[in-house]
Amino acid sequence: MKAKTKKPWEGRFQKATDPEVERFTASIHFDHRLYRHDIRGSIAHARMLCRQGLISPEDEKAIIQGLKEIEAEIEAGKFAFRAADEDIHMAIEKALIAKIGAPGEKLHTGRSRNDQVALDLRLFARDEMAKTKELLRKLRLKLVEIAGREKDTVMPGYTHLQQAQPVLLAHHLLAYEAMLARDEERIEDALKRVNFMPLGAGALAGSGLPLDRKYVAELLGFPHLSENSMDAVSDRDFVAEFIFIGALIMTHLSRLCEDFIIWSTSEFNYLEIDDSFATGSSLMPQKKNPDVLELARGKSGRVYGHLISLLTVLKGLPMTYNRDLQEDKEALFDTVDTVSSSLEVITSLLGHIRFNRKRMFEEAAKGFTTATDIVEYLALKGVPFREAHGVVGRLVAYCLKENRSFSALSLKEMRRFSSEFDRGVKKILAPWASIERKKTEGSTSSREVEKQIQRALKRK
Amino acid sequence: MKAKTKKPWEGRFQKATDPEVERFTASIHFDHRLYRHDIRGSIAHARMLCRQGLISPEDEKAIIQGLKEIEAEIEAGKFAFRAADEDIHMAIEKALIAKIGAPGEKLHTGRSRNDQVALDLRLFARDEMAKTKELLRKLRLKLVEIAGREKDTVMPGYTHLQQAQPVLLAHHLLAYEAMLARDEERIEDALKRVNFMPLGAGALAGSGLPLDRKYVAELLGFPHLSENSMDAVSDRDFVAEFIFIGALIMTHLSRLCEDFIIWSTSEFNYLEIDDSFATGSSLMPQKKNPDVLELARGKSGRVYGHLISLLTVLKGLPMTYNRDLQEDKEALFDTVDTVSSSLEVITSLLGHIRFNRKRMFEEAAKGFTTATDIVEYLALKGVPFREAHGVVGRLVAYCLKENRSFSALSLKEMRRFSSEFDRGVKKILAPWASIERKKTEGSTSSREVEKQIQRALKRK
Amino acid sequence: MKAKTKKPWEGRFQKATDPEVERFTASIHFDHRLYRHDIRGSIAHARMLCRQGLISPEDEKAIIQGLKEIEAEIEAGKFAFRAADEDIHMAIEKALIAKIGAPGEKLHTGRSRNDQVALDLRLFARDEMAKTKELLRKLRLKLVEIAGREKDTVMPGYTHLQQAQPVLLAHHLLAYEAMLARDEERIEDALKRVNFMPLGAGALAGSGLPLDRKYVAELLGFPHLSENSMDAVSDRDFVAEFIFIGALIMTHLSRLCEDFIIWSTSEFNYLEIDDSFATGSSLMPQKKNPDVLELARGKSGRVYGHLISLLTVLKGLPMTYNRDLQEDKEALFDTVDTVSSSLEVITSLLGHIRFNRKRMFEEAAKGFTTATDIVEYLALKGVPFREAHGVVGRLVAYCLKENRSFSALSLKEMRRFSSEFDRGVKKILAPWASIERKKTEGSTSSREVEKQIQRALKRK
Amino acid sequence: MKAKTKKPWEGRFQKATDPEVERFTASIHFDHRLYRHDIRGSIAHARMLCRQGLISPEDEKAIIQGLKEIEAEIEAGKFAFRAADEDIHMAIEKALIAKIGAPGEKLHTGRSRNDQVALDLRLFARDEMAKTKELLRKLRLKLVEIAGREKDTVMPGYTHLQQAQPVLLAHHLLAYEAMLARDEERIEDALKRVNFMPLGAGALAGSGLPLDRKYVAELLGFPHLSENSMDAVSDRDFVAEFIFIGALIMTHLSRLCEDFIIWSTSEFNYLEIDDSFATGSSLMPQKKNPDVLELARGKSGRVYGHLISLLTVLKGLPMTYNRDLQEDKEALFDTVDTVSSSLEVITSLLGHIRFNRKRMFEEAAKGFTTATDIVEYLALKGVPFREAHGVVGRLVAYCLKENRSFSALSLKEMRRFSSEFDRGVKKILAPWASIERKKTEGSTSSREVEKQIQRALKRK
Repeated sequence: MKAKTKKPWEGRFQKATDPEVERFTASIHFDHRLYRHDIRGSIAHARMLCRQGLISPEDEKAIIQGLKEIEAEIEAGKFAFRAADEDIHMAIEKALIAKIGAPGEKLHTGRSRNDQVALDLRLFARDEMAKTKELLRKLRLKLVEIAGREKDTVMPGYTHLQQAQPVLLAHHLLAYEAMLARDEERIEDALKRVNFMPLGAGALAGSGLPLDRKYVAELLGFPHLSENSMDAVSDRDFVAEFIFIGALIMTHLSRLCEDFIIWSTSEFNYLEIDDSFATGSSLMPQKKNPDVLELARGKSGRVYGHLISLLTVLKGLPMTYNRDLQEDKEALFDTVDTVSSSLEVITSLLGHIRFNRKRMFEEAAKGFTTATDIVEYLALKGVPFREAHGVVGRLVAYCLKENRSFSALSLKEMRRFSSEFDRGVKKILAPWASIERKKTEGSTSSREVEKQIQRALKRK
Repeated sequence: MKAKTKKPWEGRFQKATDPEVERFTASIHFDHRLYRHDIRGSIAHARMLCRQGLISPEDEKAIIQGLKEIEAEIEAGKFAFRAADEDIHMAIEKALIAKIGAPGEKLHTGRSRNDQVALDLRLFARDEMAKTKELLRKLRLKLVEIAGREKDTVMPGYTHLQQAQPVLLAHHLLAYEAMLARDEERIEDALKRVNFMPLGAGALAGSGLPLDRKYVAELLGFPHLSENSMDAVSDRDFVAEFIFIGALIMTHLSRLCEDFIIWSTSEFNYLEIDDSFATGSSLMPQKKNPDVLELARGKSGRVYGHLISLLTVLKGLPMTYNRDLQEDKEALFDTVDTVSSSLEVITSLLGHIRFNRKRMFEEAAKGFTTATDIVEYLALKGVPFREAHGVVGRLVAYCLKENRSFSALSLKEMRRFSSEFDRGVKKILAPWASIERKKTEGSTSSREVEKQIQRALKRK
Repeated sequence: MKAKTKKPWEGRFQKATDPEVERFTASIHFDHRLYRHDIRGSIAHARMLCRQGLISPEDEKAIIQGLKEIEAEIEAGKFAFRAADEDIHMAIEKALIAKIGAPGEKLHTGRSRNDQVALDLRLFARDEMAKTKELLRKLRLKLVEIAGREKDTVMPGYTHLQQAQPVLLAHHLLAYEAMLARDEERIEDALKRVNFMPLGAGALAGSGLPLDRKYVAELLGFPHLSENSMDAVSDRDFVAEFIFIGALIMTHLSRLCEDFIIWSTSEFNYLEIDDSFATGSSLMPQKKNPDVLELARGKSGRVYGHLISLLTVLKGLPMTYNRDLQEDKEALFDTVDTVSSSLEVITSLLGHIRFNRKRMFEEAAKGFTTATDIVEYLALKGVPFREAHGVVGRLVAYCLKENRSFSALSLKEMRRFSSEFDRGVKKILAPWASIERKKTEGSTSSREVEKQIQRALKRK
Repeated sequence: MKAKTKKPWEGRFQKATDPEVERFTASIHFDHRLYRHDIRGSIAHARMLCRQGLISPEDEKAIIQGLKEIEAEIEAGKFAFRAADEDIHMAIEKALIAKIGAPGEKLHTGRSRNDQVALDLRLFARDEMAKTKELLRKLRLKLVEIAGREKDTVMPGYTHLQQAQPVLLAHHLLAYEAMLARDEERIEDALKRVNFMPLGAGALAGSGLPLDRKYVAELLGFPHLSENSMDAVSDRDFVAEFIFIGALIMTHLSRLCEDFIIWSTSEFNYLEIDDSFATGSSLMPQKKNPDVLELARGKSGRVYGHLISLLTVLKGLPMTYNRDLQEDKEALFDTVDTVSSSLEVITSLLGHIRFNRKRMFEEAAKGFTTATDIVEYLALKGVPFREAHGVVGRLVAYCLKENRSFSALSLKEMRRFSSEFDRGVKKILAPWASIERKKTEGSTSSREVEKQIQRALKRK
């Protein structure tokens, strides 16, 4: 007895699929997201079939018309997806046959779900990579904009979360711009490997029909054809690579979020988030929490997890296509959603924060953040670096003991530590002086920061 | 200007939450799944508040009645969840206030979302752990049932995927039973750590109101109270532990699936899957694929990924509650769904396979799977083990060169390799003899396999 | 032509192992660490073989004597490990044969490397679990000791890294004690599953020789025998479980480290690390960095990585033993080393820090950390909780706008927000009052903190 | 009292580092591996310092001479590394000062360990990437060589590990070549991002000394300078990217290993490994195991683990350098070692295997692997694809029921399923015919396989 829901492959089978198996193996509840790419690929395939004389112009027309109607129905929310349809590819093919009859039965000529899903996934990845690049660009430009505004904002730069040397806030923000620019470049590189058209690989061996793969590639804007049909249907490297890039993007965001969360503590008080970008507590009425930053930081875990999921799926998988590969999609989809919503919300948040310039400056002026400048001052006077470092180290120890700052010391006192000290040393103790003394390319001097801004604006 | 959607915590805020922030931070699209646990916890809380005189019996009654109505509405699909409601806790509280007015405003007395969500999650985990245990038990019993049926089925046991020694198929299946029994035990152990009632921890510091935590614990069936309020609101160890156990379960299933996938190749031909538990190919009409096994194997990656997600979220998180923790839920939910559907479908599949006993036996009888028995035979005659191993190794090399099997050798030929060989050796060359010779506890002899079956049936 | 280095299994082979293969597959450069466990297991095995009449008392004596000499040589650094010896098991067996001749050739009677390595690994894990438990206990007791000392130290408790409510520093530290106590319990649970003696499982099928497994178990202190020989040689669950517990321990340490790193910033200034537990900068002479905390935090990644490594190895592995399993050891060894050195160094560091009590108190007294107390105050007067929350929220907004604190408000001003305010409100605005007002079990009141200390001291 | 071992940064410190802290934080036991890169970087730095007049030509000469002597000592195994020296950078600087006195104290002028270690790591990564590329190339060429030899070897291609369609063994092997070619390309892309020279970034802010970064870059062969000094000292993206590529390489190898392990079972019997590349069993004398393949498969877990380790370390790390970053090195080193030894051993193994051509062909000729060819045959006759698929499906079901093969059917029988069948169908039932019928680019026809070989040989 056959079940009511016919499977397109059931000829060889004596029994209908068990409903529990249908539910367990169905992917339609998530891969319906590929409907646009699937239809786009099918239209290109149909056009090629017709051009090669494998279907008639009438069939081609009916197929394309039918597919477009289905696309419209899906977009209008009128298309019923059912688990028994297995996946988006079968669902659309069945709907097409129901709609246009015999011509629909010809669409799958010379095609397998194996190369079809490889195509859909590549079309999807290509689109999403382009979108992610654009979101990265927007966030970078926002950072550049704020850097431009905060070119005179002096703050303590940190290593080990301890105050280290004065830097410009703009410089700190541009460090993030540099990270994100690399992410953009990685996407561009990865795109080269996505841009191979797999259709025509069939199930694994290629096709005996006179298909014109180049024409399909041309219609779909692929510069290359996949080179080995067995690889074509089992390759998910491009998915792993995209997820990895997503993991790095989230890593970069998590670092920015960590900085900003620390900066918005009342103890640091470097940063105020607009009320519209913060949330409150159900119990404590005074609370204003940086939830957006925390969540974006936490969501890095999500993408790391997807990366491990996919690698685990691929590990030790025999050639070629195995159903395990179905697990690629949700990992990819959620990565795309997580990365894009995080990039967007952080970009918006940057427009809703206010830096506490006064407080930042005060902290930079306090303490011993210009100790390194004194070392360099002594080194320029010929004191060997290690000796100079020791001199200033002892000077710091002395100040700590006496509870005084560098600027509170008299020249005479300083000369007790090194006879090389002269009046000039007084000029280098201010944070702004420290910043402007910097000479190296990529340093925090305002000249170099300006160059960074110009370079960032010019990145394609 | 305040937004239309009031937040319960907005007193201190001058601006409404940005809609993008609402969307990004909302969890209601997934945590609505906790509605039953949330309502159950709230009812217990309300009963305690009344008992302690913090709300009146009328308030208590109104609250409980209102919550029950809301539960019914949710179950009937009539409850509208909106991103602006943030999460299930706020959504239900707001609905309650809308429904019953002032008494609803008292429900949150002495409670914070921080301890509330900790409670809901523990209630959820407790339920799901119990369900997972039951599913493990069902799968184990199915394995025992089949082991009982296949007590006479001889097959080659494998190491390195090379034929090693004859074993009973029942013994092989019971190895999986042993793994799953450990998983059950792990859940039981983990349950001890779930069974701490967190309510009363407040936001982090405990409450100044005269709450009766023990009464709430009693109402909800918790044997223990959380011991430190700061730990109580930031502890997600129990989620990580549950996901880890899930990862091990999936690992065990992935090994079973791998075995079965290999066994159902036409080359091995040990296993036939019923048509209702296999699927076909969109292109190749002859194909019958073990998709269920492949997917269950692949889904191990999913749970490994969730484990890494959660650990990443927890890594380096300052005390106590941070919004990053919201990322715990989807990982937990999907783990629960993946593990339970995989356990169920594999249990069902075991009822839809047929082992090819004849073929298994033939393979066990071929080759040199009883070589170790000859070593033991010689060892029992006093030949030092290493020497005996060498003798049989050379015997195998000889057979390979001559393209003959052990049983085809004459005693005279064998004695060329060791003078200890006598007629007795002929009796130990059959696979069944090899199996029944096994004496050690836990070995593959039918006596020991029967003991395993009895032990498995007795596990609580 | 055979190579000079004989392999114990080479009888069947026509060619010697390629040196590159020897190098690639050798594990002796790391598994030599198991020498003590291997020898201990071999001695027990030899005693049993003798008792069962499988070897003579003279053989037994020679074997035990020889093994003890080898152990002494290894401990004296006089034992030469070579890649050609493959692993510690073969290296010791070969050395034994070289030392005592024929009796040494009998040691492996009834044993396979498969059950041997399973035994060694269980002996190792059991020892290391006991050590880890002891290190956890020491760290917990150190936390308890400091908590005892800091029972009067008031600090702001944090959620979202924002000041939330006053808590005792002791309470905060005891939250870590609670986490680590759970880790100890997890180890105890895991130990139950380690405590199964695998010897006698042979390669996979059990043994045909009259081995006395119970006697071996007794000699080695194992309460249970492994129940299924195929499972016994392929089970690495206990390794995964131990690494997972290690991952949780590192997670807990990473949270403590994060707190302490933030506290030791000059902006927070809650914590001073002794010079002997901090390090300096090669360039910046004023720097004093919390490197120990940072490294311990970072090392969480290491253990997460090992967890994923092992799970990946196990995923989809067909039964029973496969050489992939050799990859279990380094992950386990490094986890053990990382966890134990981290626990030790953090325990020591806790003896070399000084909390800045004054500064902590000042921060707790500033701001609006007692806002929740006012809500509870109003709630006790009958104001519905949500209304009370709103009142205090508006009070905070008013204070922020006026740049004033709660205590600076007159009663009259306060009554503008709620007529329920009376003189009593003034008594609850101090942090210490807030702390002592807490009534719930596990809260931050000094009474409850004292109870936690007593409970922690009583944990077995 | 100061300790005996002086730290170069101890001026500010009142106490010596605790020995436990020294041990815990030391990296010299692994980062000594960077000695060559460290010395190379220091020589370039010294030359620049001299050119800029910051040190004298005599100093420069002494420094370079000293560094070269130290390098020679390290290579001769005469250099003593001690934990108290912290890391390779300090160890070399201290040895230099000990050797040449005052000039040595000037080497660190204008440099911090932060930019120094960033440089060393980039030099190391650059070298290792080049080596990995070369190893990939060698393995690819080996695959191409064997593909050339096996151009006439027909085998069943698999999907779902079920026989699917006949393919050439060469085609199957070239699928791996295609994967590895992508890995090479990924390395080339990643190299672009490694090729930024960080020296001059100082601790985080750049340097106030007149350093010539471009000259250093030129000396060390870097085309670019790092653009932001804060990013320069905290960026480990390039390490993560290299480890990710390593993870993909190991994934590809694990798939090849899985195929080969399955092929070398006695059931498949497609592949024989030379005795010199297999190993035996300590218990079972007949065993010959594919250990190399298993270990290489298992080692994928190792690299996945390192990837997670590093991402975990980077997650949420505040700017800029934090000691957590020290955890980057071991992950990178072990990845490099694992990937290179695996590539090498698999390349060697490919020279020590023999394919069982006869058996492969027999399997390809059996069963229904040409069913898809019949579908295509019908489709070319105008039968709609879905209908053709159904016809052949029913034909398969019929054959299974009758226990017959396609070729055993008479034309008359076949015509019962479709009237389109004619004599021509008989010509397409042989595996070789199926292969040669393939027309699409990248398919398994010998023409297309030859093209793949030529393309592979031409890859740069």
